[in-house]
Order: sequence, then structure tokens, then C-alpha cells
Amino acid sequence: MRGEVITIGNELLSGLVRDTNAPFIAERLFSLGIETHQITTVGDDESQIVDSLKAALSRADLVVVTGGLGPTPDDITSKAVAKAMGLRLVLSPEALAQIEAKFKKRGIKLGPGAERQALIPAGSEIITNPVGTAPGCHILQDEKHVFVLPGVPQEMEVMMDQGVLTIIAEGTKRESFVAKKVLKVFGLTESQVYERIKGISYDGDKIKVGFLPVFPENHVTITAGSTESMERAVELVEGVEKKMRAELGDRIFGEDEETLDMVVSGMLITGGLTVAVSESCTGGLLSKRLTDVPGSSAYFKTGIVSYSNEAKSSLIGVDPHLISTKGAVSSDAAEAMALGVKRSAKTDIGVSITGIAGPSGGTEEKPVGTVFIGMAYDDNRGAGRIGSEIVVSQGYRFTGDRGRIRLISSEMALEWLRRYLLGEKVSGVGERWSRWIVSGTGNDG
Amino acid sequence: MRGEVITIGNELLSGLVRDTNAPFIAERLFSLGIETHQITTVGDDESQIVDSLKAALSRADLVVVTGGLGPTPDDITSKAVAKAMGLRLVLSPEALAQIEAKFKKRGIKLGPGAERQALIPAGSEIITNPVGTAPGCHILQDEKHVFVLPGVPQEMEVMMDQGVLTIIAEGTKRESFVAKKVLKVFGLTESQVYERIKGISYDGDKIKVGFLPVFPENHVTITAGSTESMERAVELVEGVEKKMRAELGDRIFGEDEETLDMVVSGMLITGGLTVAVSESCTGGLLSKRLTDVPGSSAYFKTGIVSYSNEAKSSLIGVDPHLISTKGAVSSDAAEAMALGVKRSAKTDIGVSITGIAGPSGGTEEKPVGTVFIGMAYDDNRGAGRIGSEIVVSQGYRFTGDRGRIRLISSEMALEWLRRYLLGEKVSGVGERWSRWIVSGTGNDG
Repeated sequence: MRGEVITIGNELLSGLVRDTNAPFIAERLFSLGIETHQITTVGDDESQIVDSLKAALSRADLVVVTGGLGPTPDDITSKAVAKAMGLRLVLSPEALAQIEAKFKKRGIKLGPGAERQALIPAGSEIITNPVGTAPGCHILQDEKHVFVLPGVPQEMEVMMDQGVLTIIAEGTKRESFVAKKVLKVFGLTESQVYERIKGISYDGDKIKVGFLPVFPENHVTITAGSTESMERAVELVEGVEKKMRAELGDRIFGEDEETLDMVVSGMLITGGLTVAVSESCTGGLLSKRLTDVPGSSAYFKTGIVSYSNEAKSSLIGVDPHLISTKGAVSSDAAEAMALGVKRSAKTDIGVSITGIAGPSGGTEEKPVGTVFIGMAYDDNRGAGRIGSEIVVSQGYRFTGDRGRIRLISSEMALEWLRRYLLGEKVSGVGERWSRWIVSGTGNDG
Repeated sequence: MRGEVITIGNELLSGLVRDTNAPFIAERLFSLGIETHQITTVGDDESQIVDSLKAALSRADLVVVTGGLGPTPDDITSKAVAKAMGLRLVLSPEALAQIEAKFKKRGIKLGPGAERQALIPAGSEIITNPVGTAPGCHILQDEKHVFVLPGVPQEMEVMMDQGVLTIIAEGTKRESFVAKKVLKVFGLTESQVYERIKGISYDGDKIKVGFLPVFPENHVTITAGSTESMERAVELVEGVEKKMRAELGDRIFGEDEETLDMVVSGMLITGGLTVAVSESCTGGLLSKRLTDVPGSSAYFKTGIVSYSNEAKSSLIGVDPHLISTKGAVSSDAAEAMALGVKRSAKTDIGVSITGIAGPSGGTEEKPVGTVFIGMAYDDNRGAGRIGSEIVVSQGYRFTGDRGRIRLISSEMALEWLRRYLLGEKVSGVGERWSRWIVSGTGNDG
């Protein structure tokens, strides 16, 4: 079953207002297994609405139209829909009664606009608007469904959930089922992801694979349709997912709605571990991401935004001599910051970021984008190493503007945490890790 | 001149990703006086792209197409555009050279995807992509312009501003001039803004006024068109702007691309003042916003994300007894945090946020959304008060989810800084300020 969405309103074409209705409707239709094949946005213009609805009905089985049902003369959607479908516009006593009741409840006198709002295409079914005054309607013609809803999101959303979805579920015998999975990858480029999974075979008639770069991540989507059952659609998705996981391994950090923040938070909670952060060029972003998730107080203890060198020394005990000899942006500084904040906050893990986000501040040796990440943790995983601390660091050279450099730096630090929590000690995140065993006997091998 | 926008991507039809490209493009085209008459969103499907572009070219003079220029086989936009316009697809040596240079800079080996990305419709002009690998292109056929851009917003936006707008401005003799101004307000609801400015009169044929809530701010846009000159259009906008500023006063914190972060940063730099932050429920967001702006190291010294009570005591010297008697979320704690971080970082100003962002952690007395903001500063503005410090705080009860509470809390703290830097000492931000003079002789009046 093919769906389409038409959103109507001059404000949507000005660039000032973002259309949130179309994605909402598409997502809800998808929950019933109906794929949206096209979204069309036009202005409050009768001929444009007529043309776009006619075109949509030539392609789709179901069209949801929103916007232009208000009480003012520029609201012409009902008229245009009737015209496109060759129907008369009639006064609905049911709609008028609903509008009258709304006005009465609010203590407002019925204006001429009310009667306009009660005009609907002949033969259509009213969809009650529990929030505002404009009722919606459902027209079934030549086995094609058209739903007309107001454009105010709060009204449209309730009417979609309470009205449209019920009518679709009851009125159509759902013949296709669609399942979907998003796999999220960090640390590989879009091309690298593609190279790894291009050999995977699947039935292209039933299964679709898509790529979506969401800086600094790459998302792979698997969508499958089945005419048999939802279980079958899920099975098809899972078959491809399994093959992809075999190729991409733990480069996949999460799926669907999961963010890297959420994944790392969950691992910290499960592991019963606490963390403290010392960051400079990211200016609080890493702390912010680690605390975006409800319940973060269980693992997050302290974040230090040590922008000045004085702060690095006084708050986390970084040796001023180290800063003056090695520089505040260095592997040594990153390691001292991670260890310092871990000790002062008495946490299991300390993470640090120091770098140059730009646009100024770069040098030939350390250009804008030079970022060092550090991590300190207790080496209590191996035998005979209780009491020792391990500090690791790695330098990166990121590209992009200030915002991107800050974002990818925080992402990389979260990825370090994830890899550490996966059981990796000192490898796999960057090309080279420097290691510095602070106390204890062994190295981390 | 009629414009249309076509956005391409299966993810845009799933409801999972909102299309931010179409409004951005529409807004930019509008800045050149080109109105967008239709926005069409289709999937990564060749025949759909071909059909929608043909239809758009039958109606419009200029079409901007975005999405589907990546290196993987589901990126088929170039091929579809060529087909729709009856052109061959050719390898552009210029595009290939740009892609090769990008890969080289990043130290990544050139994959087969790179050559795919260098295929463009014959006769088209390359639009350089300064951010990512996929170049865009411009095709002029039968006096109609088609621009093809990648779908990644960061890439598309730069290419729109640096490439497309220049080509349009040069290639078409623009006959109408459009000027625009956005006034940004914080601290008034949309209705309150409307009530204040509804009496303002202007020529509705030439000037349009729009409202756009961008949580937690409200933006008012003034757009004016003139057939005479750009100066005339600007004059029309400025006439309305002046009246609005008279009504809204310093509730307007900035205009156009300015953010509250940028405004406060600029004021701190101009005033030669330094700031330190102690925040808990915002988890680093206030520090992050204060350092989003290049050059922030001039005024931002230290940020402490004191999530745990231990951190509040050990790092910024908040009396543990105060926390146990008054609570970590209290006016007293906010004041102690602001003063503590100001003193430890030796800055001119200390700002603090402590609150309950939820979803859990609320009590009957202090429900989720309860947030205290504190500020400490030297009272060296009046005579005879050198050496004294003033600490003020205010409790708020914000509504919304965790993300919204964190965002409006950071916004309010920035607004406190702005009002302080405007010369206000202790009033105007909230209903009631508590005051606590720590040392010195006078009070702040």
C-alpha cells in the first residue's frame, strides 16, 4: 500500500517554519506498514492543491492532506480537495454541531468562519477534532483513501492517532508488513562501511538497505516488507542485520533510537563504574553528553572545563612545568588531566580532551583540529595488578569547523569509554596509543 | 521567478529524519526574491526523481535538488537528473581532482565510490564542496536552472551560500529586492510578543511580519520587497524594526544570525570581564554555550560540572552543612556555587545553575523543573564599595522534558549575564532576587 502526504501552507514555503507534520504522518503510517513514497508541500493556492492531489492519487492508494482548514478565506483546502476529486462541497450538520459546541464551551460567538469550516466534500466521513475547531474528513473513492486534517500540529497529531489510524486499521485489510532497523557506526567513513558490507546478498525486492551520514556517525538502515506477517518482515531484517553485524562488528555502537551517549551511559550503569571528565576545547560538551541521559548521576561525578592553564593546575593538579614544556595541547597534558580528574573526583575512570577547535590558535606543528584524548583507569582487571593506574592518550587531527571539531572530539572520547567498557584496554580506537603506567607492577600488555 | 525544491532520501520519507534542507533552501532563495512554490520529497528511486524533476521543470524557472550524491550505489541523483533532462552522465576531471584532494588530505585511500561521485550531467558546471567529498553541479537548460547539491546539511548549506546564491545573483538580473531582519526575544511568550507589537502599522503589500517560536526563544521576522532598490527594501524593514524595538526594548537580545551565546560573549570581551561557571543539572551545557564562540578563552576560565555533592564541596568549597540543611537544589546552594567558583577561578563573575532536570528526582516541594540560578560579582561599580562581592540567586520552575529544562536553564543563566552586562544589577530577570552581600559595606541599592 503506497502512501503520500501533502502539506499545505504558505509559511512552509517561506523557510521560516519547518514542516513537522509530514514526518509525523509518515512515521505513523509506517507503524501500520504503509510506506510514504512522496511528500509534497504547496501554498494556499487552489490550483496547486488540486494538481498535487490529482498527481498523488494517480500514484498512491492513500493520501493524507494537512493544512488550510482554518476559518479565514485563505483556507481553501476543502474546496480544492472536493474539486480534485469531482465532488460537491456540502454543509455537514455533524461538523457544524461539533464546531458550535466548541465555540459554546469557549464562550465565543459563532462567526461566519464557523460555517465555512463545516463545509466538506460530499460523501465524506467526519474526523472529530478534540483540540481545535476545524474537523477533518475521510473520503473513500475508487478504493483510494484521502484524509484531510488541519495543519496545527497539536490538532493534527491527535486526529491522526485517534481518527486516521483507527479508520485505516479497521477499513483496510493490511496486506503488507514492514520492519525496519537502523545500525549506527562510528569510526568508519561512509565508503568504508559500504566496502565492508557490499558483498552481503539479500532479496532486493523485499529488502532495502540505505546509508545515512549523520556527522560524525554513519547510519545503515535495513527495511523489509512482507505480505505474510510482521514476524516474517522482522525475520527478513534480522537476516541482513546478522550479516552486517558480522562485517561491521563492534564498529556498530547502537541501533534505532539509541545514541552513543545512551549506549555509554547504559554500560557505565551496568558496570557500576563512575567517571569524571576534564575537557578544554570541547568546553563542556563531553560532560553535557554524558549527562543528557536520565539517571546519569549514578556514574557521572565531576566535569571540569579547564579552559585556562591555571584551572588545569589548580583544579586537577596538572604540573605547570609540564604545560610550559610540553604544551597544554599535548599527549602529556591529556594524560595528566585524565589522571588528575580521576583522582580528585575519586572515580573509576577519568577522561580528558585537550585540543585546538579553532578557528584561531593553530600552529604549524599543531594546526586547528589537533586534539588529544586521554583516559585513566584502575588496572584491576588482571591478576596482581591491584592498585595500579593506567593512563593512555592519543592525538588526532580532525577537520571541519569549530562546531564539528568539538562534536567529533566528544564523540571520540565517548567511543574510548565504550571500547574500554567493552573490555578493550588500550587498542582499537586510534592508530597508536601512548601508554603510561603510573604505579603498579605490570604493563597492560 | 518561480522556484521549487526537491529533497531526496528514503530517510526523509520514514519520518525518522526531519527535512531541514528544504526550509533552508527556501529561505535563501527568498533572500534573492525567489519564492518557492513547491517542495517535493521523494525516495532514492530513479523513476521518482526523474518524474518529480520533470514536473518541477514544467512549473518552475529554478529547481534546487538535494540528496543522493554519496559514494554508494543507492546514491542515484546525478544519474536521474541527467535522465530527466536528456543529458549523458560524464566523468568530470575537475570533480575527480577535488575528490582526490579531499581523500589525500584525510589520508584515506581512494575507493571506487570516488569515481561515482565525479559523474555529472554533461555540460554542467561544478559547485565545489568545501566540507565533504561530493561536489554539486549547476545545469542551465532552456533558460531554466537546476542546482544539484548533497543532502548532508553542513555541506549543502555552505554550497548554497557560497555557490548557488552567487551563480543566481550573477546569472539572473534580479528585478526585485528583498531585505529581511530577524529580531530574537527571550523572556516573553509568543502571545506577549504579539500583544506588544500588534498595534504597529505597516504597508502589508510590501512588508511581511512573521512569528517563529524557537524554544526557548521567540523570533520575529520582518521581510520587505521593493522593485526599486535594495536600499529601499532595507529602509522599509528598518522602519518597522524601529517601531518593534520601541515596544520590545531590551527583550530583544539579538538579530539575524546572532545567538544569545554570541551576544553574551561579545559583551564579555568588550567589557574585559572574565567568567567561571558551576553547574549541576545542565551538566556542562552552560559552559559549552559560553565556549561555542571562537575566542572564548579571553573570558571563560573554568567550568565545574559539580554533579555530586562531594564535587560541590571539594572543588568549589560549598559547605557540606549547607547542602545537608538547605539541599543541593536551593537558593543557598546556587549562591555558594557561584561565589565559590568565582573565587577559585579568580574571575570577575561566577554563574551557577543547580536544579532537577528530571525525569526523576523531583519531590512535592521541589518538583522536576525546579532550578536555581546564582551569580556572584564584584560590587565595584558604586563609590566606596571596592572589595565587596554581591551574590544573587533566583528559583524557577520550568516545564518540559529533560532536554527542554536543561536548555531553558542555560538560556536563563546567559540572560542573567546579559542583563548584568547591560548594567542591571539585581533586577529584571526574575520576579524576585534574593541578595546576599558577602563582604563590604553597602548593599547594592
